[in-house]
Amino acid sequence: MNLRVLENGSVTTPAGFTASGIKAGLKKSGQPDMALLFCSQPAVVAAAFTSNVFAAAPVQWDRQILASGKTVRAVIINSGNANACTGKQGLEDARRMAAKTAELLKVQPEEVLVSSTGRIGVPMPMPVIQNGIQMAVRALSSEGGKDAAKAIMTTDTRAKHLAVSCEIGGKTIHLGGMTKGSGMIAPQMLPCPPQATMLAYLTTDAVIEQAALHACLADCLDQSFNRIIVDGDTSTNDTFIALASNLAGNPVIIKGTEDCRKFCLAFRQVAGALAREMVLDGEGVTHFVELQVHGTESDADARRVAEAIARSPLCKTAWFGGDPNWGRILAAAGYSGVQFNPDEVDLDYEDIPIVRGGRDAGTPESEQVQTLKGREIHINLKLGPGQGAFTIWTCDLSYEYVKINADYHT
Amino acid sequence: MNLRVLENGSVTTPAGFTASGIKAGLKKSGQPDMALLFCSQPAVVAAAFTSNVFAAAPVQWDRQILASGKTVRAVIINSGNANACTGKQGLEDARRMAAKTAELLKVQPEEVLVSSTGRIGVPMPMPVIQNGIQMAVRALSSEGGKDAAKAIMTTDTRAKHLAVSCEIGGKTIHLGGMTKGSGMIAPQMLPCPPQATMLAYLTTDAVIEQAALHACLADCLDQSFNRIIVDGDTSTNDTFIALASNLAGNPVIIKGTEDCRKFCLAFRQVAGALAREMVLDGEGVTHFVELQVHGTESDADARRVAEAIARSPLCKTAWFGGDPNWGRILAAAGYSGVQFNPDEVDLDYEDIPIVRGGRDAGTPESEQVQTLKGREIHINLKLGPGQGAFTIWTCDLSYEYVKINADYHT
Repeated sequence: MNLRVLENGSVTTPAGFTASGIKAGLKKSGQPDMALLFCSQPAVVAAAFTSNVFAAAPVQWDRQILASGKTVRAVIINSGNANACTGKQGLEDARRMAAKTAELLKVQPEEVLVSSTGRIGVPMPMPVIQNGIQMAVRALSSEGGKDAAKAIMTTDTRAKHLAVSCEIGGKTIHLGGMTKGSGMIAPQMLPCPPQATMLAYLTTDAVIEQAALHACLADCLDQSFNRIIVDGDTSTNDTFIALASNLAGNPVIIKGTEDCRKFCLAFRQVAGALAREMVLDGEGVTHFVELQVHGTESDADARRVAEAIARSPLCKTAWFGGDPNWGRILAAAGYSGVQFNPDEVDLDYEDIPIVRGGRDAGTPESEQVQTLKGREIHINLKLGPGQGAFTIWTCDLSYEYVKINADYHT
Repeated sequence: MNLRVLENGSVTTPAGFTASGIKAGLKKSGQPDMALLFCSQPAVVAAAFTSNVFAAAPVQWDRQILASGKTVRAVIINSGNANACTGKQGLEDARRMAAKTAELLKVQPEEVLVSSTGRIGVPMPMPVIQNGIQMAVRALSSEGGKDAAKAIMTTDTRAKHLAVSCEIGGKTIHLGGMTKGSGMIAPQMLPCPPQATMLAYLTTDAVIEQAALHACLADCLDQSFNRIIVDGDTSTNDTFIALASNLAGNPVIIKGTEDCRKFCLAFRQVAGALAREMVLDGEGVTHFVELQVHGTESDADARRVAEAIARSPLCKTAWFGGDPNWGRILAAAGYSGVQFNPDEVDLDYEDIPIVRGGRDAGTPESEQVQTLKGREIHINLKLGPGQGAFTIWTCDLSYEYVKINADYHT
């Protein structure tokens, strides 16, 4: 598949999309805090949201819209306040955000999705928000993708956006994306129709039916956002929204066809790249870890082991310290709840054998230490002869993570 | 029940027990690293060990002995090396530790339990161990309980030991205990006959049948060691051993009797006190948190919620920072996998209402902050009208925890 990465690409690269990012005044820091994404056409939409019981008000609003199966025109997004655990007033505030945006864009409130990220349990400062919506609408621009990516940041250290193009049905189609993390990251999102504060948005100008867009989104989750763990806390606000403007002129992409397979591949690449970027820019992260677990009876077993390791404070602090302490990885696998034969366990760091048959493989410690020096670390854990496998993207636990989250509020 | 706490009590307070703690040379720091606990009589024994798949070699040895149902005479313990993930050589080394101890004590190898704690995956330096056993046997003393408590420490900052007495059947009986943490602490031990590196030992001079001692130990786990979480990592070596010398002269304690109920109460107090002490001295701990979860459909549901919160890096760093950020607690409950009505959730810090009906209870933030100043924090989370309940003892996550575990090896 001929996928081209477009320099400086963003959610406004695909035809039909404009965006903006502005300073409404929600953050004490004075950084940009509201973003708007607008589609000139009724956009086909698919989305996935948090599985947290405390789904935030904007997530509840969005789910209603997704359940209607209708097209949408815009997404209004704020950082600095999660609008979660805010009761009926929170729901009313989310609705008012959509209504105000709709009014100014001359569309219907039910065509406007809402996303929020920030502190939980604080009422939304609606006058500030309403004023911000006006500013965001005025600032809409076909060059606004990068500004939007900047405005959705919380503890992120850099804006995360990209775009790619590929050929489908003889036409060039584009996909753009943006995302933010960078704490409370262990998304377990469910595709909707059926909350991290991770927010991710993917735009495309491809002509595509809703069922196909939904299938692509649902298919990619376990290979992108649902395979990342920064700290292991799953947010009340996790949101991943995909919008299609249908302007590329390609024959409509139908679920199950070869064109759909190609589109899904491109979609998965964009979602995967955004998810990796989110971990690389996770709170206090100094090492990105790709952990492949395999040889279990089922993929679910491999996932359970991978998640236990990715959540283990002892494994994460060892990665921070550059300590090859493989016993912590085996111990985490051993308490994951998955049964396996400890004498059949092999472990590699960067293709260097560390454990064979559940015991030290004999690689000198000086060589083991070298494998953990890179910003990206690849760990391969084989638990037996089974066919189950799962890959997780995770990171270390540093002083900086503690600092960010002990001082978040004050 | 008339329970008396004995000043400077330890495992050698009950009649029949001697102990020692010596420097064998296993630790670079030069601190004491081997302990021996000896009973002048064949001791009735009950024990619980880790549920980790990678049960350490000494745990495997001890399980065999427990399975025999016979009495024991001694426990030989080393810190500085876990003898875990060490294969057949590890098992042979554990057996040799028991054999050497037995030889010097003139008992049978099958009467000697073995415990190890320290780094995983490193072969045991048997010459150092053998020499240490000789020193430990020579140093046995009826005053040795405190030395033993000191020698089993790893990252602990203080020795943890105590003793109590009570009246049963007209006689004064004694219970003594010692324990060590203080990282890789989330014990999920199973009573044996069916591994933290938490190690805990309880001695008593009560006359008691094995079935009664076993029942007391099994009953107390969920109210002591299995309700504590320091970092959420469950070790390969967790061990809790109870030994009875039968020297107190009381009528034998039979399972199911009033005497047994009284003894269990005393047993639970000692185990509970040791478990609390372990959390208070957990790695980098600045706040001890007692978290009561109730109002769920079942105790298991309450436990699942309590464990999610106790493992949450965001909750733990907020406690470290003294940040009342209750949204993190609700979010952790919300992703625990337990279903409940978010609008029925109440949260108190130190009996001060923080959340009512899933929303901010209106207590001024300055008052909320005051509730988090103490070294011990009491948090009460009610999730609904159900009868399920579980109390967990946990702690904060500090810079010091990261430092200890990033630098553990180097």
